[in-house]
Amino acid sequence: MALTGELFIGRRRTSTAQRFQAIDPARGEALLPAFSAAGTAELETACALAEAAFDSYRSRPPQRRAEFLEAIAEQILAQGEDLLARAHLETALPLARLTGERARTVGQLRLFAEELRAGEWLGLRVDSALAQRAPAPRADIRLRKIACGPVAVFGASNFPLAFSVAGGDSAAALAAGCPIVVKGHPAHPGTSEWVARAIVAAAAETDMPAGVFSLLNGPDTALGAALVADARIRAVAFTGSRAGGLALMKIAAERPEPIPVYAEMSSINPVVLLPAALAGRGASLAREFVASLTLGVGQFCTNPGLVLALGGEGLQSFIEAAGAALEAVSPAVMLTEGIQRNYVRGVERMGTEGAELLAQSSAGDQNCARAALFSVTAESLVHRPRLAEETFGPASLIVRCRTVRELRETLERLEGQLTATLQMDAPDQPLAQELLATLERKAGRIVVNSWPTGVEVCHAMVHGGPFPATADGRSTSVGTLAIERFLRPVCYQGFADALLPPELRADELPHWPHRFDGERRLGRAE
Amino acid sequence: MALTGELFIGRRRTSTAQRFQAIDPARGEALLPAFSAAGTAELETACALAEAAFDSYRSRPPQRRAEFLEAIAEQILAQGEDLLARAHLETALPLARLTGERARTVGQLRLFAEELRAGEWLGLRVDSALAQRAPAPRADIRLRKIACGPVAVFGASNFPLAFSVAGGDSAAALAAGCPIVVKGHPAHPGTSEWVARAIVAAAAETDMPAGVFSLLNGPDTALGAALVADARIRAVAFTGSRAGGLALMKIAAERPEPIPVYAEMSSINPVVLLPAALAGRGASLAREFVASLTLGVGQFCTNPGLVLALGGEGLQSFIEAAGAALEAVSPAVMLTEGIQRNYVRGVERMGTEGAELLAQSSAGDQNCARAALFSVTAESLVHRPRLAEETFGPASLIVRCRTVRELRETLERLEGQLTATLQMDAPDQPLAQELLATLERKAGRIVVNSWPTGVEVCHAMVHGGPFPATADGRSTSVGTLAIERFLRPVCYQGFADALLPPELRADELPHWPHRFDGERRLGRAE
Repeated sequence: MALTGELFIGRRRTSTAQRFQAIDPARGEALLPAFSAAGTAELETACALAEAAFDSYRSRPPQRRAEFLEAIAEQILAQGEDLLARAHLETALPLARLTGERARTVGQLRLFAEELRAGEWLGLRVDSALAQRAPAPRADIRLRKIACGPVAVFGASNFPLAFSVAGGDSAAALAAGCPIVVKGHPAHPGTSEWVARAIVAAAAETDMPAGVFSLLNGPDTALGAALVADARIRAVAFTGSRAGGLALMKIAAERPEPIPVYAEMSSINPVVLLPAALAGRGASLAREFVASLTLGVGQFCTNPGLVLALGGEGLQSFIEAAGAALEAVSPAVMLTEGIQRNYVRGVERMGTEGAELLAQSSAGDQNCARAALFSVTAESLVHRPRLAEETFGPASLIVRCRTVRELRETLERLEGQLTATLQMDAPDQPLAQELLATLERKAGRIVVNSWPTGVEVCHAMVHGGPFPATADGRSTSVGTLAIERFLRPVCYQGFADALLPPELRADELPHWPHRFDGERRLGRAE
Repeated sequence: MALTGELFIGRRRTSTAQRFQAIDPARGEALLPAFSAAGTAELETACALAEAAFDSYRSRPPQRRAEFLEAIAEQILAQGEDLLARAHLETALPLARLTGERARTVGQLRLFAEELRAGEWLGLRVDSALAQRAPAPRADIRLRKIACGPVAVFGASNFPLAFSVAGGDSAAALAAGCPIVVKGHPAHPGTSEWVARAIVAAAAETDMPAGVFSLLNGPDTALGAALVADARIRAVAFTGSRAGGLALMKIAAERPEPIPVYAEMSSINPVVLLPAALAGRGASLAREFVASLTLGVGQFCTNPGLVLALGGEGLQSFIEAAGAALEAVSPAVMLTEGIQRNYVRGVERMGTEGAELLAQSSAGDQNCARAALFSVTAESLVHRPRLAEETFGPASLIVRCRTVRELRETLERLEGQLTATLQMDAPDQPLAQELLATLERKAGRIVVNSWPTGVEVCHAMVHGGPFPATADGRSTSVGTLAIERFLRPVCYQGFADALLPPELRADELPHWPHRFDGERRLGRAE
C-alpha cells in the first residue's frame, strides 16, 4: 500500500487543493507524495463529527474503549516496516530508535487499556443516604469522572510515533472517553498517515463512532490556532516549543469559554553533581552525561541542558572528561532544518551571552548538529538569565558555584522544569536533603543517580512540571496519571439505581475501586 | 473582647491610615469600629511571609496540619455569640442560619482534618525497580502530591463563615499544605476579624509558621487584583460575581507565570419538571420550589433560577401554586445594598427582555428583595439569551416548552452550570434517561427529586461545573475532593529510602492508601 496524502475526517478520506510535502532532513529533498492541507471546511467537519461522537463514545463501557486502544496497537504493529521506513525518511531518526519508539507507543496504548479496566480513573465515590439525620436527611450522593469533550492533540516533531498521532496524549484522551482531532506535525505527514490508517481501521473493527478520530494536516500554524479556538474543542494537548505553547495558551484563555491547555514547552533539566559523587566517579559521570546529552541528537524535552556543581578539582576533571567524550561524538542529522537552524542560533547566543565554550563535536553534513559544552560561573548567570533558556539540541551549560548557598540560590532562580537530577553518593546525603525542597518546587520529577532522558511509562511517572516546563503543573503527559487531564467530576444526587451510570449502580460498583462513605474499597475489577 | 479593626499579617496585627466601615444592611448605618485597609506594604509583607512559610508548613506531617484545622474549629466555637452577633449585624442573615453556617464551617475544617489522616489526597504511587529488565533496567519510581504554594483566598459575601476567612477554600488550601493570604470581603470585616483571631490563635497553639495565614482587608478591588498578580501566589480561590471572577482569570492568565484560578462565578441551576411528577405532585413541587428559591433571600450559588417543563395543565397548576406561595413570602434584607441594587436591575431586565411577570412578593424596607417569578416560552428564550443570565437573588424564570425536543435543545443552549435538577416520578424514567447526557455535559451536580440549594459537605460532592459556572470545571469547591485544587504531583526516581519524603518511605508507605505497581492497596492509616 502506498501513501495517498489524504486527510482523515472521521472515517472519510478527503483531498484538498492546497498541498505540502515532507522534507528528508538528511538530504534536504522533498518526499512524495504531496499531502493535502486541511482548511476551514475540513476543520469544521472534523470538529462537528467529534462533537457528534462525544456522548456515544464516552458512554461506551471502559472495556470497549480498552479494546479500541488495543486494536490501534495491533494495527500499528501490522504495518511493519512501512511505518518505520517512512518515519526514518521523514525524521532521520535511526531505525533502531524508531523500533523502540514504536514499542513504547504500542505499550502506552496497552497500558491505558489496562488502566481503563482497573478503573482508578473513574474516581468513584459514594456517600450513602442518611434518611434519619437531623435537622435534614441526606440523599444518596455519588461521584464519577467523565470525559471533558473533544480534545485537540498536536503531534510533536521529536516523537513521530510516541507523541504524535497515536502517541501518549491521544492514548490518554481516547482512554478518558474523548474524541480527538489531531493536528499532525508537518515534518512527518507520511508517518501520520500510516498511523491514522491504523486508528481508522481499529475504530471500524471495534465499532467506534466515526467522529472519534480525525487527522488534520497542514503546514501553517493558523490551522492549529483555529482548532484551539473552535468552541467544540474542550482541551488541548501539545508538545513543542515555548512560543508555540504560549500562543495556544493565549488563544485558549481568550475564548468565550476558556479551556485547559496541556502544553509541554521547555525545560533545561538541571543536573546537580554533588561533591562526593564528583570526587568518586567524575569520569564515568562525564561519559554518562554526554551520552544523555547527545541521545537522539539532544532532541528530548528532558535533555540535561544545565549542570551545577561546586567548583574545584572534581569539577575540573569532570569537565575534561566530558569535553573529551563530547568531541568524540559523531555528527548527526536533526529532525528538521528549522530545528537545526534554531539550534545553531542557540549555541551562538550562549557564546554572545558570555558562556565559555569548553568543547564541541565536529561539524557534519546538512542539518547536522555539533554538540556543544559551555561553562559559566553562578555569579555571571545571575546577570545573564537568558543562558538558562532552553537550546533544543545537544548543548549544555556547566555552572560553577563557589558555595552551597550559591548553588541553592542558582536553583531557586531557575524557572519550572520537567526534571531535576542529583548525582550523589552516601556522604552527599545531607546536602541532597538540603536541596530537596527547592527541587520539589521547581520540577515535576526528581532523579537520583541516573539521567533525565529516558522517561518510563508507568503509574508513578510525572512528565510535567511548573510553568514554563508545562502550561499546567498539575498534570503529566506520560504515565497513567495523564488520563486525569481529560476528565471532570460529576455528582449524582438522589438517583434511583436504574438511572445511575453503570459504574455507580449497585451491581457494578463493587467491581470498581471506590470510596464508600470516605472509606477506600478495592473493587474487584473484571 | 472588642474588635480592633486591625489587619493580620502573619502573627502580627497592624493598622493603616486608610479606613473603611461595614454597613448594617438592615439599617443602612455604618458599624464601628473602622477597619484598616491593606495597601501595597501589607500585601508585600503577607506574600513574603507566606512564601517563607511554605516549605516549613507543607513539610509538617499531615497529622500536625490536621490538628491545626481542628484547633481553628475549636477557636471559632469558643468565640460563641460574639462571632454570630457580629455576622448577623453585618449580613442581616438570621442567627439561626448563621448558627447552622458556623456548624458547617467547623464541620468542614474537621472533615479536612480527617481527610488529611486518611491520606487519599497524597495520591501515592510506587513502581518498583526492575533491575533485570532488558534492554534497560527500571529504577524505583514513586509519586506523591505536594502543595502548590501560597494561595489567595477571596471571602464570599453570601457565606460570611463557610466561604470566607476560614471557609471551605481556606480549609482545603491549608489541608493541602498551602499558606493562605485571605482577601476579606469588605461587607463583613468584623466577622473576618473574629475568624482571623481564631486562626492566629490556632496557629500559635499548634506551632505553625507565622506566614501560614494573613488577612488583608480593603474596600477596593485593586487589592485583590494586586494579590492575584503577585508572583508568590500560586493559586486563587474565589466565590463571587462573574465579572469579578473573569477579571481575576484574566490577571492570572496574563502573569509572567500563569496560575490556576478556581472561581465560582454564576449559575442559574436549571430545574426540569418532568410530566408525571408535575401531574402527580405539582402543588407540593411548587411550594418546595419557592422555599428553595427564597431560602437565604435567594443568595445562593445554587439558587433555582430557571425551571423548564412541557406546557400544559400540569405546568399551569404549578405556576399558580408557585405564584401564590411566592406572594406569601415575607420581604427580607439582602446582604448588601449593592447586591440589592443589582437584584432590582436584574428583575427589571427580565421584564424588558420580554419575560412575563407571574408573581412578586410584597415590597419591604430598605435593602429588601421582592421575590419574583417570570415565565417565557422556549422559543422566545432562543432570541433572548440574556434571560438565561444569573440574577443573584430570589428571582426565577419558568420556560414553557412545546416538545421534548424543544426542552432538550433549551438545555443544550445553556451555559455551564453548578447544578441541574430533575423532578421525576417512575413514568418519567425514559425521558430522564434521554436528558441525562446533556445534563452531565452542562453541570457539575445532577439532583433528582430534591432542590439544588443545600450543598452537602461530603466526599462525593461536586460544587463546580463547566465554565462559566466555575473557571475550572475539573474541580469542586465543596467536599473533600476540593483539596486536589491545591496539589501537584512530584515523582521521585531512584531515591534511597532515607532521602524519600516520609509518606513514601518503606516504614510509612504501608500505612497510607497507595498503588503499588498499579495495584490498589488500602493502607492502614494511623
